[in-house]
Amino acid sequence: MNPITYELIKTDKQTGARLGRVHTPHGSFDTPTFMPVGTLATVKTMSPEDLQSMQANIILSNTYHLWLRPGEDIIREAGGLHKFMNWDGAILTDSGGFQVFSLSDMREIKEEGVHFRNHLNGEKLFLSPEKAMDIQNALGSDIMMAFDECPPYPAEYDYMKASVERTSRWAERCLQAHNRPHDQGLFGIVQGGEYEALRKQSAEDLVSLDFPGYAIGGLSVGEPKHVMNKVLEFTTPFLPSNKPRYLMGVGSPDALIDGAIRGVDMFDCVLPTRIARNGTCMTSNGRLVVRNAKYARDFNPIDEHCSCHVCKNYSRAYIRHLIKCNETFGFRLTTYHNLHFLLKLMEQVRTAIKEDRLGDFKESFFEQYGLNKANPKNF
Amino acid sequence: MNPITYELIKTDKQTGARLGRVHTPHGSFDTPTFMPVGTLATVKTMSPEDLQSMQANIILSNTYHLWLRPGEDIIREAGGLHKFMNWDGAILTDSGGFQVFSLSDMREIKEEGVHFRNHLNGEKLFLSPEKAMDIQNALGSDIMMAFDECPPYPAEYDYMKASVERTSRWAERCLQAHNRPHDQGLFGIVQGGEYEALRKQSAEDLVSLDFPGYAIGGLSVGEPKHVMNKVLEFTTPFLPSNKPRYLMGVGSPDALIDGAIRGVDMFDCVLPTRIARNGTCMTSNGRLVVRNAKYARDFNPIDEHCSCHVCKNYSRAYIRHLIKCNETFGFRLTTYHNLHFLLKLMEQVRTAIKEDRLGDFKESFFEQYGLNKANPKNF
Repeated sequence: MNPITYELIKTDKQTGARLGRVHTPHGSFDTPTFMPVGTLATVKTMSPEDLQSMQANIILSNTYHLWLRPGEDIIREAGGLHKFMNWDGAILTDSGGFQVFSLSDMREIKEEGVHFRNHLNGEKLFLSPEKAMDIQNALGSDIMMAFDECPPYPAEYDYMKASVERTSRWAERCLQAHNRPHDQGLFGIVQGGEYEALRKQSAEDLVSLDFPGYAIGGLSVGEPKHVMNKVLEFTTPFLPSNKPRYLMGVGSPDALIDGAIRGVDMFDCVLPTRIARNGTCMTSNGRLVVRNAKYARDFNPIDEHCSCHVCKNYSRAYIRHLIKCNETFGFRLTTYHNLHFLLKLMEQVRTAIKEDRLGDFKESFFEQYGLNKANPKNF
Repeated sequence: MNPITYELIKTDKQTGARLGRVHTPHGSFDTPTFMPVGTLATVKTMSPEDLQSMQANIILSNTYHLWLRPGEDIIREAGGLHKFMNWDGAILTDSGGFQVFSLSDMREIKEEGVHFRNHLNGEKLFLSPEKAMDIQNALGSDIMMAFDECPPYPAEYDYMKASVERTSRWAERCLQAHNRPHDQGLFGIVQGGEYEALRKQSAEDLVSLDFPGYAIGGLSVGEPKHVMNKVLEFTTPFLPSNKPRYLMGVGSPDALIDGAIRGVDMFDCVLPTRIARNGTCMTSNGRLVVRNAKYARDFNPIDEHCSCHVCKNYSRAYIRHLIKCNETFGFRLTTYHNLHFLLKLMEQVRTAIKEDRLGDFKESFFEQYGLNKANPKNF
């Protein structure tokens, strides 16, 4: 029996978006969903109880970072990542592939894997499909990701084709190296850039290996939004309807809605937590930079339409004061609010799918968030 | 009716320590007690719920810091400090006197007050008894402190005598300037350094003004512990038994016990929260520097005898990992533990007083904490 299963509940008649449920060894979650990112075995500033109280049922953690600190052996000894960080919900770990390409220096890609220097102290390291599986097996995440090559955007067709084929060979090696298929589900990652033929080739290669879920990688890497949407439109039909689909690295409200409309079930991104630590909040009326001077005497909540604990108890003036003073409780409050905002947004998306009105919901959300203005902010 | 009242419940037959209860407009608390410090309207890394869950019923906040940021007018507009920071328990504010002497440059003490430059940007400022009352009235704390001069240690007798007399004149001006005597209680601060005659003079001056409580200032400023204990021994008998006594700036476990034994009811200090952010924890077996390498694979709790949420759910290895990675959740966990430790210690002290065995408790606590060794650590 596969540890990860997906249940398609219904599709939205307006858009084709999918309402579903994913079952894992650490509980189930409704989709489409957003996964908060806990890079170093902690969602920055949040406690597990904070995350539970906003109904986060699955979080993401980063294999590359945990491999370097504290090291996967320590987490294995602790009894796995869930126990180490006191999180009883589901965990998805990435493969380290993206970080090798985004954070490290002097990488050399070979068929056996990638040689590179780490971003902390320049030490020489080697990551391969087998090593990525070994680390993730030590972490014990519910959902593991195959080790892929993450090509830059844009990339030439020939480069991308060779890369996609290597990623497929690596995916097969990942499946073979995976030691805990009974309690950890491994997802393949579809690459291929903006080329439909290569996305098709990548998806077909991976689907033939019968993963319990599929990620769409190589998006949100600098391409315009319309390119991302186009790629999603032609890629998701290549994926089986009885498996979950995960769009990696996407967390702006518009992209979450646009992704759901194109058949995506799972998303993750550091955006809500990262901007929170810079004093920027997502609200139903668009983004609000609470550290701005104009909020010094504003005793309203961050978002008057928000039902979260932060908006019920704290004012913009107080949060601005904390952030100006570099008080971590301020970052804790903005982080909580932003994550709650995105999780609530996904709940609204699911309700809209249930009621066959996700197209209408998108229209009204985009209008209120300010996304229909000329040159809207990215989030 | 005075907003602050003290109820003496009983004294310990072994030591004379006082078990009591202080009533404030924002609830009552049992004494002896320790007050966590929330300098900038936040106990660093903690939420109000965190503090409530460890039974902190009163916290301290700093007038000087809030005067500079965000400014007392903003807090007044917010409806006072309780509302601004979402804290429904009691709050004590200091007068700013200590910070003027410890943080500022180029201070000039005159009869009307103190001219100085602030520690943030060097701006010229002036703090006086009247200004300190005005700010604290804006903050709306339950317990306010009179504006005093904090002389250095050691100081000559003649300097100290003149200073004590000025502090008494300032105390009278504070009483006259205090605009909210119906809902904020003002404490006088006994000074006098290590001179018994001056402590007596200071106490008699202030007691004649009939404050609802008295602080003992000018201790924990660099003098040896035996000097502090001696000063407490000859000072508390000058204070009325029906008013609470507050020893300012003391938070090491031994000094809390020694202070209680000498008749002190309230304490505050940044020690537990400050060392927590450096990865140092207080435990029943003495202090533990959890960031040390030897805890990298130690999956025990910080303190195996501790019942706090942190010790029930997190290991030394996890907390060390977080702190090494500069993750604020690590500081949140060590801060929670240390504050819980001191609040629990004060609960043990109160129980020991109730059972007339505080002397015995001190003996066994000092032994287990390692305070009876040669050259013990300061905390």
